[in-house]
Amino acid sequence: MKTTPLSSLGEFKLIEHLTKDIKLHHASTKKGVGDDAAVFSAEGKQNLITTDLLVEGIHFDLTYTPLKHLGYKAVVVNLSDIYAMNGEPRLITVSLSVSNRFSLEALEELYAGMHLACAEYKVDLVGGDTTSSQQGLTISITAIGVAESEKIAYRNTAKENQLICVSGDLGAAYLGLQLLEREKEIFRTHPEVQPQLQDYSYVLQRQLKPEARRDIVRFLAEKNIVPTAMIDISDGLSSEILHLCKQSNLGCKIFEEKIPIAMETQDAAKEFKLDPTICALSGGEDYELLFSIQQADYETIKQHNDIAIIGHFTTQKKGVNLIARDGTAVPMRAQGWNAMKEAE
Amino acid sequence: MKTTPLSSLGEFKLIEHLTKDIKLHHASTKKGVGDDAAVFSAEGKQNLITTDLLVEGIHFDLTYTPLKHLGYKAVVVNLSDIYAMNGEPRLITVSLSVSNRFSLEALEELYAGMHLACAEYKVDLVGGDTTSSQQGLTISITAIGVAESEKIAYRNTAKENQLICVSGDLGAAYLGLQLLEREKEIFRTHPEVQPQLQDYSYVLQRQLKPEARRDIVRFLAEKNIVPTAMIDISDGLSSEILHLCKQSNLGCKIFEEKIPIAMETQDAAKEFKLDPTICALSGGEDYELLFSIQQADYETIKQHNDIAIIGHFTTQKKGVNLIARDGTAVPMRAQGWNAMKEAE
Repeated sequence: MKTTPLSSLGEFKLIEHLTKDIKLHHASTKKGVGDDAAVFSAEGKQNLITTDLLVEGIHFDLTYTPLKHLGYKAVVVNLSDIYAMNGEPRLITVSLSVSNRFSLEALEELYAGMHLACAEYKVDLVGGDTTSSQQGLTISITAIGVAESEKIAYRNTAKENQLICVSGDLGAAYLGLQLLEREKEIFRTHPEVQPQLQDYSYVLQRQLKPEARRDIVRFLAEKNIVPTAMIDISDGLSSEILHLCKQSNLGCKIFEEKIPIAMETQDAAKEFKLDPTICALSGGEDYELLFSIQQADYETIKQHNDIAIIGHFTTQKKGVNLIARDGTAVPMRAQGWNAMKEAE
Repeated sequence: MKTTPLSSLGEFKLIEHLTKDIKLHHASTKKGVGDDAAVFSAEGKQNLITTDLLVEGIHFDLTYTPLKHLGYKAVVVNLSDIYAMNGEPRLITVSLSVSNRFSLEALEELYAGMHLACAEYKVDLVGGDTTSSQQGLTISITAIGVAESEKIAYRNTAKENQLICVSGDLGAAYLGLQLLEREKEIFRTHPEVQPQLQDYSYVLQRQLKPEARRDIVRFLAEKNIVPTAMIDISDGLSSEILHLCKQSNLGCKIFEEKIPIAMETQDAAKEFKLDPTICALSGGEDYELLFSIQQADYETIKQHNDIAIIGHFTTQKKGVNLIARDGTAVPMRAQGWNAMKEAE
């Protein structure tokens, strides 16, 4: 396959090339790529802003992550933060630093994934910065969204006795990662062995191409339910529930038996000799929504097939507890993926 | 000096530590650091968004760049893009990836510089992402500003015969960089030689601690002048004038003798055997404003001591020309700093 070195284009031509097919989705986006700044309005709503930085070798491994999937995921994880405020994403900026081991075709793949996510979630890519690096690929995305003031869901507004809910199922993305790491190791030591991945499509998809839960935010809006607090699950259930409890000055009871875990996740956990509950609590990267509702909304939420009610908030004094299947209370600890662990 | 390894804090404690003293300047910033996204409103104005990525070894060299200056500059270069739209910056997000060779104290220095810039320009730091890297420091900043629709200055709206103006003086930042590179080389080969930098404070300051031209934007507003087009000078005058001409479908005449170059810059250029005009045209990082005005505003602009009228726009057919001191026309070429040059 013919590849084009980035050095043959220069910064401006590269940006022009990568952004030439961008379609804008919102009339409120007055100006996208091509000036010192993009221009947009919020039409009387509140704006939301969030940003995420993905670093090669820390957040992703290109030996098993297709660039198109990476581009898609890099956008989705930012949109997930906007949905976690109960807002709708409107636009993103994308900054990249790339070493000269990447070709134009590689960046086209990455952008194809980003454009796909933008099309899927109707988000405008309005600007960014593209530069070289001495080593590896770094992706920095900032997302802007909108929400009506009274519908924004913060982390610090939950109250005692409110019900704690989670969308979808947890732990799958972590097992997808374990599987990819295992296959990488097998390939390194036995390159002749063909990977056996067909039985694991669910957990792999959860790791490689996560989706943001726009559908949940829209369902809640339809039912006139404003979550009393909300956060997205990027670092594992434990870490996120601790954020909500700490910021709302509450404790909670989470019932282990209520934590939603897919059959495929349980099977994969068994194979890796991992406890599926631990994968859900500490695995991360599921990008599901963790939120709380008033007790009055119980009946409405119960009807939704893809929302599980997993516990309730208590006073802070009672602590942040997991109630195991045998009824014993175990204090939950933050075991979220620690981005600051020794890297070198 | 005692230093604290970042690994002893973990991501959340590090963010808490670095952001604990943040003061918000705008009532429109409803929520800053500490949730999935920050919340702000534009109060009926248009929002502007811009982003810049600074990579160690590409954009800065920590052997001669103090971290506090780097933090200040990283913020200022983004604010400069907002001013270049004729807007006022309101808030920023800051994402960092750092290898474990950096200590907590190093990041505190970097943040001290960012906080200083935020205080100076009354900008709210509302969020970000902090993560590890396998190598070096990468800083990604996104800035949001506001402007009234009819006052935004784009790049593609200049017209024939309008006057081309530039604030401040050009070329100094490039000579500051040459000086720092020379001292680095001397130190490498003769570590016993003390650096002689006292005669160069102006060009060094222009390189290490640039300012964004808020004062020019405010002067124009005061005089009810909306620039017919505007851009900030990050890549050198040639590159920026070519952007304006290309996007506005115009040519121009720039008079070499009118290009503002400080005495200190001329002295430094002489020492390095460089043509000061070339430094102004191709040097970059001056963060001055290049803008065009209607001829009717000539008298008002002329009164300002720190704005030079350096030429005017022509039809596209006539080309983008520098009129040298001897009257000959030289086509201008983009020699802006090429971020995509071979890096490895």
